[in-house]
Amino acid sequence: MPLTLVPSNRYERTAFFVSDGTGITAETFGHALLSQFDVKFRQVRLPFVDSVSKALEAARRINEAAERDGKRPLVFSTLVNAEVAAVMRQANGMIHELIPTFVPGLEQELGIKSTHGIGRSHTIADTEEYNRRIEAINFSLAHDDGESNKGLPDADVILVGVSRCGKTPTSLYLAMTHGLKIANYPLIPEDFARGNLPSVLPRQREKLFGLSISPDRLHQVRNERRPGSKYASIEQCRMEVNEAEALMRREGIRWLSTTTKSIEEIAATILQEIRIERKSF
Amino acid sequence: MPLTLVPSNRYERTAFFVSDGTGITAETFGHALLSQFDVKFRQVRLPFVDSVSKALEAARRINEAAERDGKRPLVFSTLVNAEVAAVMRQANGMIHELIPTFVPGLEQELGIKSTHGIGRSHTIADTEEYNRRIEAINFSLAHDDGESNKGLPDADVILVGVSRCGKTPTSLYLAMTHGLKIANYPLIPEDFARGNLPSVLPRQREKLFGLSISPDRLHQVRNERRPGSKYASIEQCRMEVNEAEALMRREGIRWLSTTTKSIEEIAATILQEIRIERKSF
Repeated sequence: MPLTLVPSNRYERTAFFVSDGTGITAETFGHALLSQFDVKFRQVRLPFVDSVSKALEAARRINEAAERDGKRPLVFSTLVNAEVAAVMRQANGMIHELIPTFVPGLEQELGIKSTHGIGRSHTIADTEEYNRRIEAINFSLAHDDGESNKGLPDADVILVGVSRCGKTPTSLYLAMTHGLKIANYPLIPEDFARGNLPSVLPRQREKLFGLSISPDRLHQVRNERRPGSKYASIEQCRMEVNEAEALMRREGIRWLSTTTKSIEEIAATILQEIRIERKSF
Repeated sequence: MPLTLVPSNRYERTAFFVSDGTGITAETFGHALLSQFDVKFRQVRLPFVDSVSKALEAARRINEAAERDGKRPLVFSTLVNAEVAAVMRQANGMIHELIPTFVPGLEQELGIKSTHGIGRSHTIADTEEYNRRIEAINFSLAHDDGESNKGLPDADVILVGVSRCGKTPTSLYLAMTHGLKIANYPLIPEDFARGNLPSVLPRQREKLFGLSISPDRLHQVRNERRPGSKYASIEQCRMEVNEAEALMRREGIRWLSTTTKSIEEIAATILQEIRIERKSF
């Protein structure tokens, strides 16, 4: 759903994500369902709908879209406050609500009432948690691309792989979403010539995880950055990938190929393999 | 839900997030509902459950938790494949499923059948989209903390604010989740002495967005980084925050306080104010 690439007259219908908080949960909820249909949706996030007047404004926008499209919009809501939700429900949309659909059953199962806490999924629950997350991002930035060996023993995971195989985005993603301290270390031609890992790494073997990539894809990625360079040539990419994979195999490092994976899939696979618990969320 | 801080005997119950993809949607779905209850849940993500044999293994783990806890676990599932879901449903858990709950109604509304696409929310839908996202992350890293003025006209947003007010995590978050090119530029004592914005900035005024923070919180954050320094002193923090806010007011820059906000809330607020569409997801 590359929104900005679709001219607005190509949309068949509008989808709204309505939330009393950031709208991240509402959007995730809606995306999961919309991705099951081959339809182009104009997608509108309505965050911070936490009062009756904001709910009236949300309803107005939903009605407006219904009129323009000639079809009622699909609405995915995580509103918690019953009064606010009731106002939004008056709009001319097909309303899907997470809270009223599942909370009553959970109340019965748990034998307690829900707290009706608003926007709880993506607020600061705890300053200590927040600090840990910021610290993880700072750590991962400071230990990007082998920039510093200081503090490597504090890393939760050390990613290794050839230049441009996806180490940096994966490190930042895991730091950001899971509060994990991720260092990443490039495997470079000097390492292949020497035939073993950078000397600072082996003492950290249990934390090492490798990323690899197909030589064709690497060639494409590097060529965008440094067109026509030796660094980007298919021969160089083939050599580096072969050597890196041989080195990781020899050193017993687990690795995965990033070629057809999204950052989220790479991250989820690493977490599953390393069996590490998230430190924040 | 600071998982690692709760000793395992303090958990009252287990929650599973089961998915045929990364598990991000299942986890978001479950968190939104669990956050409505004052109960400590042990949380287990089971990603890539995309076969009957993996569903059997998932069911085994759910049953094991039921036995250990003496209470059936809560299960939040985004499984799409009906056969795989049917196996998981045999487990001794309270099963909540996104797809069967909402897809039939949507099929009726849209007048078409769902595609039954698996793990579609967080895969690479499109190489161009993927490249745009990586490019946004690289841009934001290269333009962190005023590191480069080159390419500033390409930025979607330029964040300004005093050192340690949250510019870097916010920039990386927006690049990562929305494919936006975010530069950030520190406001420093030299700018306050001169009384106006760094000279490279005003030509970009429509893209500028300010972050501020309470002096007390800034003092605490800086003190963790450079304990006892002048930089971290409450007097210095007070001066910088006052001067930065006065400067932003004078220059007509919109700004928000990050003091009690999560990265997600800061990002959602900026997007709402700037009215920019996401470029990837």
